[in-house]
Formats: sequence, structure tokens, C-alpha cells
Amino acid sequence: MSFTVAPPAPDSTPVDTDTAACCAPASREAIGAADAEKLARSLKAVADPARLRLVSLVAAHADEEACVCDLTEPLGLSQPTVSHHLKVLVDAGILTRDKRGTWAYYRLVPGALDSLAGLLAGL
Amino acid sequence: MSFTVAPPAPDSTPVDTDTAACCAPASREAIGAADAEKLARSLKAVADPARLRLVSLVAAHADEEACVCDLTEPLGLSQPTVSHHLKVLVDAGILTRDKRGTWAYYRLVPGALDSLAGLLAGL
Repeated sequence: MSFTVAPPAPDSTPVDTDTAACCAPASREAIGAADAEKLARSLKAVADPARLRLVSLVAAHADEEACVCDLTEPLGLSQPTVSHHLKVLVDAGILTRDKRGTWAYYRLVPGALDSLAGLLAGL
Repeated sequence: MSFTVAPPAPDSTPVDTDTAACCAPASREAIGAADAEKLARSLKAVADPARLRLVSLVAAHADEEACVCDLTEPLGLSQPTVSHHLKVLVDAGILTRDKRGTWAYYRLVPGALDSLAGLLAGL
């Protein structure tokens, strides 16, 4: 994701203020509207307790891959609810889904969480 | 935030599967339910385009502090809407608010974004 330039902060004149300096101009670029929309969508996908636990459970498994059969019981949620949350994570590019025989296997997309974390830390 | 141990993934026996291995046990601890709730609350606070732009605008200002008078126009939102978003960010511990004279000044809480990013990357 590349950030575009937000409009510069406008100058404005404070009235009745006891501080000398107000409204200093921005000293570097802020995230643009389109990039903020994209980042917010990705963050919303993980900003849910059940989805955070699913991502963490997948990450905790050997090879960072987990069978859906291993993900339902730890959360104490119904299979359809877990499947819904997993779909949100797949749609957001956090997990991949691989159906093999009876079971679906979920795997972390390499770098997806690091990328999201980097964008957040670099705001 | 310290993570507690989630219940271990249960063993289960797949039926009618063409793969040899299913449901490998978790190889490390996953995030616990209480920590997932806390992290989700923090992520929800920033998982909004307007709030991401506000955080970024504050971060872009000299000294990482911005007057509320500088934050309304770039977003193209009403003052009450911007104030609402700023309050969510203050309540979440991302920003601090300092009223000086007429204006309120917002500042990034040092390390708040890095901490959130670290928890996300370390899931």
C-alpha cells in the first residue's frame, strides 16, 4: 500500500487563547483518504476477539497451518460462526484456505500481519 | 498486556480424508480470550478511516501535537463528528487531550501505536 498525500492542514487564527502557538503546519505527509479506507478495512477484519483468537491459533500450529476441526472447540463457538469469521479473515488476505478431503486447512498469509502492523506503527 | 494461555487444541479424528495428517496439536500458546477482547477493543478504536487519518495528522505535526482547529478541515467532517472520533482515540489510550485556552491539543501517546502493532504482529 502506498500512501498518498493528504491536503495540508489549513492555517487558522485562534481567538481568545492563552497560548502563543496554535495550528502549526504539518511537518510531514499524513495518510490519504483512500489509503485510510483500505487500512481501516484490513484492521476491521482483525478487530474482533474471535478472529484474533483464530489467527493466533493458526499461527500457534506447526507450520502455521490448522485444520478447521481444531479451531472450533477452543473458541466455544458454533461451526457456522467460526466459518464466518474464517471467511472474513480469508477475504481480508490474512489467511488462506485449502480444502483437502474432508477438512479445510487455514494458513497465515506470509507477512500479512507484519504488513498491517507496519502500516499501523508508521501512521 | 500479558497473554494468557488458551486451552490446547483438542485431538480429533478425521473421517474420510485423503490427507494423512490432520489436527496437529498447537506448537505454542495462542492468545487467551481476555487478551483477545482487550486487543480487539484497541484495534476497533483505530479501525476507522477518519480515526486513522486523525492519528496520522497528529503524528505528522511538529512535536506530534495538533490543535483540534487543524484537524477538522482536512477530514471534511463536522466538528462534532471529529470530536467524537478524537474522544474514541483518547478513551483508547492512543491520543491525549490537553485543553489550553480556546483550543484542545491532541498528542500521540508515546509507544501506543508501536505497542498495538507489536501485539498484532506477535499473534
